[in-house]
Amino acid sequence: MNVKLKPEKYLRYLYLPNLFGTNRTKEILHVNPTVIPFREEAKEVAAFLYDYDALSVSEKKLAAIEEAFAFRDTNRISWVNIDGLRKKDVESICNYYGIHSLIIEDILSVDQRPKMDEVEGVLFCLLNMLYFNAKKKTVETEQISILLGKDFVITFQEDASRDAFDPIRSKLKIAKSQVRQRTADYMLYSMLDLIVDNYFLVMESLGEQIEALEEEVVRRSNTKSLARINQLRKELIVLKRNIAPVRDLVGNIIRSESELLDDRTTKYFKDVYDHIIQAFDLSENYRDIMMSMQDLYVSNVNLRLNEVMKVMTIVTCLLAPATVVGGIFGMNFDVIPYAHHEWGFYFAVSIMLIVPLIMLYIFKKRGWF
Amino acid sequence: MNVKLKPEKYLRYLYLPNLFGTNRTKEILHVNPTVIPFREEAKEVAAFLYDYDALSVSEKKLAAIEEAFAFRDTNRISWVNIDGLRKKDVESICNYYGIHSLIIEDILSVDQRPKMDEVEGVLFCLLNMLYFNAKKKTVETEQISILLGKDFVITFQEDASRDAFDPIRSKLKIAKSQVRQRTADYMLYSMLDLIVDNYFLVMESLGEQIEALEEEVVRRSNTKSLARINQLRKELIVLKRNIAPVRDLVGNIIRSESELLDDRTTKYFKDVYDHIIQAFDLSENYRDIMMSMQDLYVSNVNLRLNEVMKVMTIVTCLLAPATVVGGIFGMNFDVIPYAHHEWGFYFAVSIMLIVPLIMLYIFKKRGWF
Amino acid sequence: MNVKLKPEKYLRYLYLPNLFGTNRTKEILHVNPTVIPFREEAKEVAAFLYDYDALSVSEKKLAAIEEAFAFRDTNRISWVNIDGLRKKDVESICNYYGIHSLIIEDILSVDQRPKMDEVEGVLFCLLNMLYFNAKKKTVETEQISILLGKDFVITFQEDASRDAFDPIRSKLKIAKSQVRQRTADYMLYSMLDLIVDNYFLVMESLGEQIEALEEEVVRRSNTKSLARINQLRKELIVLKRNIAPVRDLVGNIIRSESELLDDRTTKYFKDVYDHIIQAFDLSENYRDIMMSMQDLYVSNVNLRLNEVMKVMTIVTCLLAPATVVGGIFGMNFDVIPYAHHEWGFYFAVSIMLIVPLIMLYIFKKRGWF
Amino acid sequence: MNVKLKPEKYLRYLYLPNLFGTNRTKEILHVNPTVIPFREEAKEVAAFLYDYDALSVSEKKLAAIEEAFAFRDTNRISWVNIDGLRKKDVESICNYYGIHSLIIEDILSVDQRPKMDEVEGVLFCLLNMLYFNAKKKTVETEQISILLGKDFVITFQEDASRDAFDPIRSKLKIAKSQVRQRTADYMLYSMLDLIVDNYFLVMESLGEQIEALEEEVVRRSNTKSLARINQLRKELIVLKRNIAPVRDLVGNIIRSESELLDDRTTKYFKDVYDHIIQAFDLSENYRDIMMSMQDLYVSNVNLRLNEVMKVMTIVTCLLAPATVVGGIFGMNFDVIPYAHHEWGFYFAVSIMLIVPLIMLYIFKKRGWF
Amino acid sequence: MNVKLKPEKYLRYLYLPNLFGTNRTKEILHVNPTVIPFREEAKEVAAFLYDYDALSVSEKKLAAIEEAFAFRDTNRISWVNIDGLRKKDVESICNYYGIHSLIIEDILSVDQRPKMDEVEGVLFCLLNMLYFNAKKKTVETEQISILLGKDFVITFQEDASRDAFDPIRSKLKIAKSQVRQRTADYMLYSMLDLIVDNYFLVMESLGEQIEALEEEVVRRSNTKSLARINQLRKELIVLKRNIAPVRDLVGNIIRSESELLDDRTTKYFKDVYDHIIQAFDLSENYRDIMMSMQDLYVSNVNLRLNEVMKVMTIVTCLLAPATVVGGIFGMNFDVIPYAHHEWGFYFAVSIMLIVPLIMLYIFKKRGWF
Repeated sequence: MNVKLKPEKYLRYLYLPNLFGTNRTKEILHVNPTVIPFREEAKEVAAFLYDYDALSVSEKKLAAIEEAFAFRDTNRISWVNIDGLRKKDVESICNYYGIHSLIIEDILSVDQRPKMDEVEGVLFCLLNMLYFNAKKKTVETEQISILLGKDFVITFQEDASRDAFDPIRSKLKIAKSQVRQRTADYMLYSMLDLIVDNYFLVMESLGEQIEALEEEVVRRSNTKSLARINQLRKELIVLKRNIAPVRDLVGNIIRSESELLDDRTTKYFKDVYDHIIQAFDLSENYRDIMMSMQDLYVSNVNLRLNEVMKVMTIVTCLLAPATVVGGIFGMNFDVIPYAHHEWGFYFAVSIMLIVPLIMLYIFKKRGWF
Repeated sequence: MNVKLKPEKYLRYLYLPNLFGTNRTKEILHVNPTVIPFREEAKEVAAFLYDYDALSVSEKKLAAIEEAFAFRDTNRISWVNIDGLRKKDVESICNYYGIHSLIIEDILSVDQRPKMDEVEGVLFCLLNMLYFNAKKKTVETEQISILLGKDFVITFQEDASRDAFDPIRSKLKIAKSQVRQRTADYMLYSMLDLIVDNYFLVMESLGEQIEALEEEVVRRSNTKSLARINQLRKELIVLKRNIAPVRDLVGNIIRSESELLDDRTTKYFKDVYDHIIQAFDLSENYRDIMMSMQDLYVSNVNLRLNEVMKVMTIVTCLLAPATVVGGIFGMNFDVIPYAHHEWGFYFAVSIMLIVPLIMLYIFKKRGWF
Repeated sequence: MNVKLKPEKYLRYLYLPNLFGTNRTKEILHVNPTVIPFREEAKEVAAFLYDYDALSVSEKKLAAIEEAFAFRDTNRISWVNIDGLRKKDVESICNYYGIHSLIIEDILSVDQRPKMDEVEGVLFCLLNMLYFNAKKKTVETEQISILLGKDFVITFQEDASRDAFDPIRSKLKIAKSQVRQRTADYMLYSMLDLIVDNYFLVMESLGEQIEALEEEVVRRSNTKSLARINQLRKELIVLKRNIAPVRDLVGNIIRSESELLDDRTTKYFKDVYDHIIQAFDLSENYRDIMMSMQDLYVSNVNLRLNEVMKVMTIVTCLLAPATVVGGIFGMNFDVIPYAHHEWGFYFAVSIMLIVPLIMLYIFKKRGWF
Repeated sequence: MNVKLKPEKYLRYLYLPNLFGTNRTKEILHVNPTVIPFREEAKEVAAFLYDYDALSVSEKKLAAIEEAFAFRDTNRISWVNIDGLRKKDVESICNYYGIHSLIIEDILSVDQRPKMDEVEGVLFCLLNMLYFNAKKKTVETEQISILLGKDFVITFQEDASRDAFDPIRSKLKIAKSQVRQRTADYMLYSMLDLIVDNYFLVMESLGEQIEALEEEVVRRSNTKSLARINQLRKELIVLKRNIAPVRDLVGNIIRSESELLDDRTTKYFKDVYDHIIQAFDLSENYRDIMMSMQDLYVSNVNLRLNEVMKVMTIVTCLLAPATVVGGIFGMNFDVIPYAHHEWGFYFAVSIMLIVPLIMLYIFKKRGWF
Repeated sequence: MNVKLKPEKYLRYLYLPNLFGTNRTKEILHVNPTVIPFREEAKEVAAFLYDYDALSVSEKKLAAIEEAFAFRDTNRISWVNIDGLRKKDVESICNYYGIHSLIIEDILSVDQRPKMDEVEGVLFCLLNMLYFNAKKKTVETEQISILLGKDFVITFQEDASRDAFDPIRSKLKIAKSQVRQRTADYMLYSMLDLIVDNYFLVMESLGEQIEALEEEVVRRSNTKSLARINQLRKELIVLKRNIAPVRDLVGNIIRSESELLDDRTTKYFKDVYDHIIQAFDLSENYRDIMMSMQDLYVSNVNLRLNEVMKVMTIVTCLLAPATVVGGIFGMNFDVIPYAHHEWGFYFAVSIMLIVPLIMLYIFKKRGWF
């Protein structure tokens, strides 16, 4: 018995659910339980206010949300950015700015589908910032709510530790930057552009994963590859689920006839639309490549196995005639031809060698190797 | 002969149809035999009337349907809720409120597709409440008919033992609740919202089933897993069959220009629409994950089998040369080399051991394990 | 040699084409050879005339088609129903009522796609009545042509032996029935409603077939099941081919602005439309279930085979070491250990038993059974 | 060694590319190299002119294209039909009738997609006549260009040896035929009707091929069947590629508001539209049946192989215990039980027989045959 | 042991990733990282200016982009063609001609999706020229940007070494050519026509690859074929990704109501539209054929393997009875029938031959070869 017991084989089965990321399925399948809302209150909240026009900009870190209220009636554009969601804060500022209660509910909800809405003179966008977690190799989402009103923009982010809008802050400080020269809707454009551009970074990372995986599938094709294929398919579902509705969202903004949207800004939104369309197309290409990779995996595993089985079966088959010859001359008959001949044994062994060689020649000729 | 007869193996085949839920197929495939309507009369009927406005609400348990008629011409909004369907009751109240006979037929029909209709100043919605039966692990439906007229809402439910609209009853008792402050169409919204939100609860339960199943498929992949995959696929058909037409239903309400629908309520229906779209998207994701799970199942079963077959074939192949050597020295020739040698036997046995070891080395090197 | 020759095995192959219903394929693939029309003249023709209004109804069996002409100009609605198509009859009555020659061609054609047309003040519907032939287990079609004009309805059926419109006849005799109270378009509605409702009966029968088949597939999964799956898939093609265009047909009637259609009847046609949509959805569900059944069949056949192959390979593998041991001690060396020992034989046999038992233990532990 | 070398086996591989019709792929994949037009000049050109109205018709075989020019300004309708395309001829007549140069390019192009265009008062249709080549079993195309102008129709066909429009010629000679009574657009209708009806004839032939193939697949399922399935799938691609754009073509004619199209002719074009829709539906059905046939082929090949493998493996497995028993009593121990017993040999042989019989009984009981 | 160690087998695995073109995947999956633009500055720039009208044309090689500025206000049409992109050049000329900054960004971006835009009186088209690299057997792209303004056309190409617009240059030199007679939009048409026609040349080359591959798959079906199938599928993704958005691009031009587009040119754009539709249809056909080729590959590999396995298993099975007979007469019983008979040995050997022959006869009869 030459087959060793390998403990890692058993362990492999124990680790499999983890490898195949079943708990990731749980996260993906998790649905918005609107009946009983249960968003946890953020532990940390960071709120900033920017009050700007072409001439000047004032930045203020808000200790309490209420400090922002004073800036509402300046002639300048106010941007209130709140990192970390607490029910009390959200309701306080939204009520002050006259936001509809349904929108407040949406801001506080979890796992919402990206959507765009115009209610009572306020344009509301809800979408997800995507991040690629290089360690877990998963796509993570952060819900971003943007409220565009007359001369104000209010943004809510889930996570105080990550700041999605950092590049906009930098631009705000440059007096001659577009965002300073233009109306509040240009701020909305800048945000959407930033978020959509970030999708490409996430896709770039996923693309690298796919490429590395393809090389692995071609080279090795083991259970781990299958697990990785399954994992990546799930991440692509997350990706598509976020990109597809954003396409509609931006499309709706372009078609919108809201007074909040300046005609001059439309071409900027069209540019974002082109990008999101391209992101959508690419995500379809990814899916196609994943499908063809799974086909390749199955082909490769079968090819590998079939080669082994073929050789084994051929070896067994080639040795069978030798066994028969051995059996023939091992029979206990009194009269066995060549039994008493000096070269009898060698003659029999020769047959044992020659017959498989002939068989091998035929097999070769038929192209069975 | 080391193979035991296992009675549970035979039994397994007997239980299979049950395992694969073929009788569930029967229920799913069951069609609406409109030619011969045969809804069974409800054994139990529970009818309630709520007559409310912003100031007050009166609740009345109806012993007979006719008791509701008196409230029709109050200036307040009447909600008549009937749990359990009897032909006589439905016809009596519908005729009194002037409902078209086709709608009466729809209310009394079984296995109807969700639909929305406006006939003669009455807006009619028919859809299904979904429940997840944790014991049978199936999605159950209860047909709900909602009639919205000028200052009245009449609802019909199939099953007197379950009450879908309980949360609305609670809200009705609170004077400052939205439902008390607004017109009858807000009541319709509340009901649709409740029903659609319930879909998420059912999907949550199904999601848990899928996740548990995926872990099982990854770990064990036996016939039971296959049966579960088949069962869940059927439940997803039921889910999709109920969600897809409700999307149209809500969409039609939004587009409707009925006088019964207040403009202020439209944004609420839009909110329901967002939810039903999200439910639909999620049900598509579920389907994708089920498909990839079935692929995984097949891959896993094959992988498992292939591993067994490979080892078996390799063991058989490795032992074949030993058989041949045994055959060679077992031949009855007078002259057999080393036959009379003291170490002859051990020499032969050594060959028997060495040849498979060399083969094993080659196989290993080729990566066949 | 324990393998018996079983004549029924050969016969099976002979019966296969019949089993797989290849002649059914012929019927399905048969196309409308409009170039050379070749409808056979009906052997038997049964023509009836009903002349009715709210007050009275007169029924007349027509010996010759021409007898119907006299009723054209009564103020009452005339319904001429002709069972069995003969070129001469069709042309005679159509010309009298001023029907366009293209419609006459359509009525006389075979295997037409359901269609609806309005030509010169006449509304023309062509669709198929479906019957489920319980013996052949196939869906049979009967082409129905309905002509709706001002105060007249003319219907043509292919087959004099079956009468699709019997329930309408019964209703005509009841003075207070809707069909008597209303205009001719209500008669058209009644007919479409009857035909569409009949689709559900056919689907119910097909559903029973599918359910029975699923149970069979789960239990046995033999060639016969595969043949049945193939057969049923073909019947579903027939079903879908008939239902999908009828959806368009009814939709066109609803959108039509013909003067022949009373506004009051529209909601009835909408009801038919709801039913045909439901029928279409169901036929899609059927197709999904058939697909998942075919997957199940393949899985089951492979599972069954794999189990057999696995056991066989394991048994062969377990017996191989015994053969080797037998070969070892069967070698003709002078010096064989334990050869002269009293318990030598039993010792060897014990090894033959112990080695497979150890192997079996390892296999079990690895979960290979 | 009982395996014969069969030369036809090698030959089969040589013939395979031919069998699978790879050169057919070349033809299908061949694209329109618009950059360098290279239509070969027709060897033979046959041009006819028909000048007709309700009263009379004059037919003229044209020796030179220019002879047709004189008939342009008669008050009668002129139909110029040119079989065989030469650049000089096409340009000559088109320039005389004032046809746009882009249309001339289209007429002279090869492998064009069917299209319809209205340019400067001329309606241009380009589509393919389909023929089924019974010998090669392929669908052949002949490009037909139809130009409809005020009182003239000019048609171009690729192949002078086949005449697609023969039936129209016959009808032209009958004074009371519709084509003589009506305007030039009725001539266009007649041609489209003829071409579309011809599609049904081609589909009928393909249907017969499919049916014959299905019977073959069910009965034999060899490599030839697979090759035929592949071939037929390619022909279906050709078919669909021709039918799908013709649907748009006819649809465009119906929607067209060209002055060349008489309102009275619209219902005739609608009739052609119904036919082309039916042809399209049927081609989809064909595709479905081909897909299910390929599934069937794979199932059947596997079934056949599995049966062989199963029996072989079972026979090998059943004989293994006998080999072991033979090995046991063949060992050279001094003490072998029953070795000296008179019935010892028969006892051992009995075991050899009984053990496989018991195994066979167990296998049977488990339903492994 | 007759199995040779073949070094090329190991090497094959090393070369596999290269064979399957995983680095090609990298290129395809590469996304537009709009956040950090990083187009490399062209090493070489070649700029030409053509200033033409119906009467004369002047050609000028530009040493510096600024030399073109002088020609802006001639009454003639100016075409500035810039091969090789440098940020400074692009911005310089675009700013001079008043092009919007978003368009400048698009021109300088990489891996853009083909798009068309009208901004401030300038029509902007971005699409890719495709080339088939015969050596690497890949589809290569070169980004082309075309700006159409009042009396000027500016084109940007990525690669100075290839000149896509050579044929247009030739036509410009011919005074009576269409491009000289017409407005600037005809120049745009000529460019789009050239680019789209080039797609057909690329598809022609891909078609030849597919055809050669199909022949290879049918004949040999080895790992290399699978790798080629995977490679070609990727090239088809590249092809489709470029063709599909160009369809929208041309469609948008046709629907555009820009003053830059002359009504007389519309029919030319329609012609380009017909070509791009045909290209799209063909790319779908290619995909279908690739899918059916992959099916064929899998079928063929399995067929080949199954044949080998079948023969091997049958040979092993046929030799098993001989082994048993050898074992029977090799047993060491005192009483062995015919043991002492003169023809005993030959009798036993005859059984060894006859039993397999009978088995062979049965197998043949059952059609197992």
